[in-house]
Amino acid sequence: MKPGYLSSRCSRIGASEIRELLKLAERPDVISLAGGLPDPRLFPKEEMTEIAKRVLREVGEKALQYSPTKGTAVFLREAADFMERHGVRLSGEDDIIVTSGSQQALYLLGGVLIDEGDYVIVEKPTYPAALGAFKVHGARFLGVRMDDGGMDTHDLERVVKEAVNEGKRVKLIYTIPTGHNPYGTTMDNERRKHLLEVAEKYDLLVVEDDPYGLITFVEKEIDKLKSLDKSGRVIYVQSLSKILSPGMRLAWVAGPKDVIEHMALLKQYVDLHTSTLTQYIAAETLRSRVIERNLDRMRRTYKEKRDVMLETLEEEMPEGVEWTKPIGGFFVFVKLPEGIDTSKMLMKAVEKGVAYVPGSAFFYDRSGANTMRLSYSYPPAEMVREGVKRLTRVVRDELAGR
Amino acid sequence: MKPGYLSSRCSRIGASEIRELLKLAERPDVISLAGGLPDPRLFPKEEMTEIAKRVLREVGEKALQYSPTKGTAVFLREAADFMERHGVRLSGEDDIIVTSGSQQALYLLGGVLIDEGDYVIVEKPTYPAALGAFKVHGARFLGVRMDDGGMDTHDLERVVKEAVNEGKRVKLIYTIPTGHNPYGTTMDNERRKHLLEVAEKYDLLVVEDDPYGLITFVEKEIDKLKSLDKSGRVIYVQSLSKILSPGMRLAWVAGPKDVIEHMALLKQYVDLHTSTLTQYIAAETLRSRVIERNLDRMRRTYKEKRDVMLETLEEEMPEGVEWTKPIGGFFVFVKLPEGIDTSKMLMKAVEKGVAYVPGSAFFYDRSGANTMRLSYSYPPAEMVREGVKRLTRVVRDELAGR
Repeated sequence: MKPGYLSSRCSRIGASEIRELLKLAERPDVISLAGGLPDPRLFPKEEMTEIAKRVLREVGEKALQYSPTKGTAVFLREAADFMERHGVRLSGEDDIIVTSGSQQALYLLGGVLIDEGDYVIVEKPTYPAALGAFKVHGARFLGVRMDDGGMDTHDLERVVKEAVNEGKRVKLIYTIPTGHNPYGTTMDNERRKHLLEVAEKYDLLVVEDDPYGLITFVEKEIDKLKSLDKSGRVIYVQSLSKILSPGMRLAWVAGPKDVIEHMALLKQYVDLHTSTLTQYIAAETLRSRVIERNLDRMRRTYKEKRDVMLETLEEEMPEGVEWTKPIGGFFVFVKLPEGIDTSKMLMKAVEKGVAYVPGSAFFYDRSGANTMRLSYSYPPAEMVREGVKRLTRVVRDELAGR
Repeated sequence: MKPGYLSSRCSRIGASEIRELLKLAERPDVISLAGGLPDPRLFPKEEMTEIAKRVLREVGEKALQYSPTKGTAVFLREAADFMERHGVRLSGEDDIIVTSGSQQALYLLGGVLIDEGDYVIVEKPTYPAALGAFKVHGARFLGVRMDDGGMDTHDLERVVKEAVNEGKRVKLIYTIPTGHNPYGTTMDNERRKHLLEVAEKYDLLVVEDDPYGLITFVEKEIDKLKSLDKSGRVIYVQSLSKILSPGMRLAWVAGPKDVIEHMALLKQYVDLHTSTLTQYIAAETLRSRVIERNLDRMRRTYKEKRDVMLETLEEEMPEGVEWTKPIGGFFVFVKLPEGIDTSKMLMKAVEKGVAYVPGSAFFYDRSGANTMRLSYSYPPAEMVREGVKRLTRVVRDELAGR
């Protein structure tokens, strides 16, 4: 058989570093602070067992049959209601589509929005799977710096202005404004409004990726960009992976009708439609407020683990190490002194029984060699503490060895 | 907002005619012989309710969590066992990946195999969603004629030879050998072997799309191309849509390791992984032989409806109308006298209370204007009879009006 039967496209697709790393973390003696998996103790198993039973028994003939590409009517209605309960009211210009997780949302968005060579504005660092979903469709990237308040929107304005002056085709701003992955930060309303002003001024679309929007550790729910948007340029992506179950592979996108319409056309080619059965189960979960009833416990659990991680970092890490202080989400981003390469350090860390994600995975230009992402979401609090302690010993060794 | 924010890719993706047509069939007064939906009365609702309950209760923490892109270990093992029970034994050169329905299988195969301008050999007519999945990645097509025995492999040899002589890059042969969609035919073993010889001679891959392989109305199960393949060039696609439930969106692909490996890499970008929950439910369904126990009833039910459709066509249709006689699958392909355009006739048919799919949807070159696909799978037998009667009146009117 000829060896050349694979398409040239294959040279563009590579293994995700994070996914490969998750394999390392499977050793039972390794505490993984790497993957952003939700805590399975928070899955509402009992409620979902009851719901699945009821769905299959009562509407099994529908739940097991083909369904529309955009989503089942009942799921889309419950998704809209859920968003409205959390501050996002859709306009007559908007529409919704269900997707098989937010990964598919980003892939379809890339497909219908990105032409070869178009520029996407991203945070530095940002979510690597989003970089991949845009890049596979030919995107190039421009990065905006971040600080404790999330994306620095003054830097955003500078970057966009410069790119436009150079004649670059800038298409959209991709942002995770709440509980940033990997940076851990949450933008305040002033910055959110400024971001939207910049988008307005330069006529850009905004993709608001919001998996952690409800997992916050502050009194009041954070306003979505989508709810502050007056000109219909925000495309809102809500995943159920972190607040219900990633194994269901369910997310949705709310945005301008023609974007959604074209996503549906592309989705016909990609997988025809998302599982009817999981949509029916999730719709009933949304309708009966399972997520909302679970939210206090979720927030308490993740806040406790965040506290443990921040305390332990504070107690253990040597001078010169810095980290972000999340008020939501799953992640703390750590910066080690210049000269340390966290990719090289990883094997030593795994030997000492702890894993993390090297920061360079989150920078489109592969910078950030001295940074890393720690997740507190999956391991029990005591393991978070022990993991950070182990990591500290690795960092101290590394600093001593310079 | 600028109107030009959609990518140029959007001009390549169009609405599927069949999907659009399904909307017509939603009128309660229309008998749809259009869509290839399985009969929902055959869904094993009771067994699946029990299985879903058990899966969520006993392994909910795994079934609701992220899982590997290639598929959960338990699903892949059960898929391999299922294939082996039905005559496909994988070699050490083969591997398996789960996909979100066979649509995604074909999309990923197109992605990893097709370069812009590559030729794919297809049957005339063939499954339109396969044409779409390959075309969206830049494929061009060459067609092979069909007769009562399915693909005419002598014509195949002629077409391939000619194309190769003209310097065309021919990549693969796509075929639905059993219960062909839309043609209704099943290839005998002699032709299957000949097809594989041609593939061997010209070093082509073969994609065997086999959703109907077990839904046959003959004594013995039909040999898969994959089971006759000696040189590891058959990529086998098995969907659970027709034998278990399309709403689960589950299929798998078994083929050469490097093809599967690259499909998994592309799938990471497309949707990260297929629903863990539906994989767990399906794995248990496979393990406990739910499909096999249901198979007699499935075959009896579809055979009865096929009989009704063929009998009614025989009794009612005027001279000059021809149709195929399926021994498996869901479809009968009808050829009307030259000059009749089934696309134009469709609106009249819907007015008379019956729907079908115009044949031109199944020809990559939009030929076959006087053909149509009828499906007997979804409506009850009596409705199949009534639908064909209504259709006959429309055809007679049309012939009289020429």
